[in-house]
Parts: sequence; C-alpha cells; structure tokens
Amino acid sequence: MTGLLYLEDLTVGRRFESPERQLDADAIIAFASEFDPQPFHTDPAAAEGTFFQGLAASGWHTAAFTMRLLVGSLPIAGGLIGAGAEISWPRPTRPGDRLRVVSTVQDVIPSRSRPDRGQIVLLSETLNQNDEIAQRLVSRMVVPRRET
Amino acid sequence: MTGLLYLEDLTVGRRFESPERQLDADAIIAFASEFDPQPFHTDPAAAEGTFFQGLAASGWHTAAFTMRLLVGSLPIAGGLIGAGAEISWPRPTRPGDRLRVVSTVQDVIPSRSRPDRGQIVLLSETLNQNDEIAQRLVSRMVVPRRET
Repeated sequence: MTGLLYLEDLTVGRRFESPERQLDADAIIAFASEFDPQPFHTDPAAAEGTFFQGLAASGWHTAAFTMRLLVGSLPIAGGLIGAGAEISWPRPTRPGDRLRVVSTVQDVIPSRSRPDRGQIVLLSETLNQNDEIAQRLVSRMVVPRRET
Repeated sequence: MTGLLYLEDLTVGRRFESPERQLDADAIIAFASEFDPQPFHTDPAAAEGTFFQGLAASGWHTAAFTMRLLVGSLPIAGGLIGAGAEISWPRPTRPGDRLRVVSTVQDVIPSRSRPDRGQIVLLSETLNQNDEIAQRLVSRMVVPRRET
C-alpha cells in the first residue's frame, strides 16, 4: 500500500504506470454523441470516408479516459488538480484499443508565495496495446507540501 | 446560412461565438464519476473542504463541453480535427454556470507538403455568465483548402 504523495516525494524522473483498460466502440460513440458529434466519432460507416478512415475516439474522450487512469494510479495528497496542460494526439484511439498511461515527473517547482504547496510538471503518455502513443500530455499540477 | 469554411476563409482575426449553454451539478457529477472521480468533482459536501471550496467541474468536462459548443458554431469543412492544444483553467466551472465559447483565428499555416490542406491556430476562450474565463484553449486544427 503506497501512501499519499506530497511534493517532497515527487522527484524528477519518478515514474507511474496505470493499469490497462479497453475503450470500446459503444463508449466512443456515446461520448462523442454528447460532446463531439462528428461522423468520424459517431458513425462507423460514415467514418470510413473521412480524415480518420474509420471510427476514432474524440481526442477529448482519450483525454478524459486518461484522467480516469491517472486518478487510479497517482495518489497525490489533495487529489489531482491540473492548472494547465499541453496535449497532442499523435495517432487516433480506435475501438477496442487497450490504453494505459505512463507518467514521469519532469519538474518540481515549490511555490515562492505559498510555502504549503508547489507544482509539478508531469509527462503522461497514453499508450495503446501496441505501445504506440495515442496521446501526449504535459500537465502542471498543484501539489501540497508535507507539513513540517 | 453560412457555408462550410475552408483554409482560405479563416483569416487571422476572424471570430466565432457559440450560443450559451448551462452546465448543471448532475452533469458535473455524472462526468466526473466516470472520468475524474475525485470528491471535489463528485460530492458537493466533501468538496467544501478541498482546494476548490465547493463542487467544480472536471477540467476535462469543461474541455468536452467546450468542444460541444465549438462543433455547433464553427462549420469547418471536413469537421473539427485537432492536432494538439494548450489548455488552462484560470477558474473553476461551477454548477449552474452558463458557458459560451469565443474563438479567434490566430494563425493560418498552409501545409508545405500537402497542397490540399493546412492548419490554423485557434484561441478559444470559454466564458461564464459573468464573462470570466473558465478555460483558455489554443488549438491547432487541420483544415482543408478549397479545391482549385
């Protein structure tokens, strides 16, 4: 059992890996119908003739799915609180893909004005079952310091 | 009735505004229960004692909700296809907030290798009913050129 993580625990290079979880066509279509209703995300037949050449998850679905995997595998004290991020989708997420997230601490920045907290920069790569990168996320997260 | 937009139509400074749409507590809790199950997104009472000091939407929910507003208000030919983005959340989205998205074309980049397409850089600010910025998104989108 790992305890909760504070800024002092999150040294540069520390690595976290989530379990793998499958994303199915039904979920892709349901998410997109609500948030990103475009044929390449909602209609397998119509998707064939598009940029994606087949059904693909909304990038925001891949992002939300990644968040779910992060919440289960990165036990930061106070929770996962993002201030901002850079995100890219080097390749589409397809129905049946099994995704996992590998995260690495890239920077640790104590706050100058708030001695009780800081930020980390975290690289989170969302990989599919072929170890191909479906999403690259570099996020800044607010992290509390251990009480001294 | 506006026609579909091609790269040639998307000049720097061109502006698009979505209709306003309300985000309710039920939707905030449902989204977070599936994708971002942390107390400040799922439990109004427990949220009081957290960083957010009350229920707040997951940032990924604000992002997905923004996408829904963009899909309805930015008729790019071929659809809205993001290659990547920078995203930040200057303030939380709260239950009952009425959000709208104001987007401005910041750059237009014809592809050197593919004469049939290009990219735009689009700033999309998600504003609440008090004109406060809940999300700032700068995205790169793939846009087709008009056939000549």
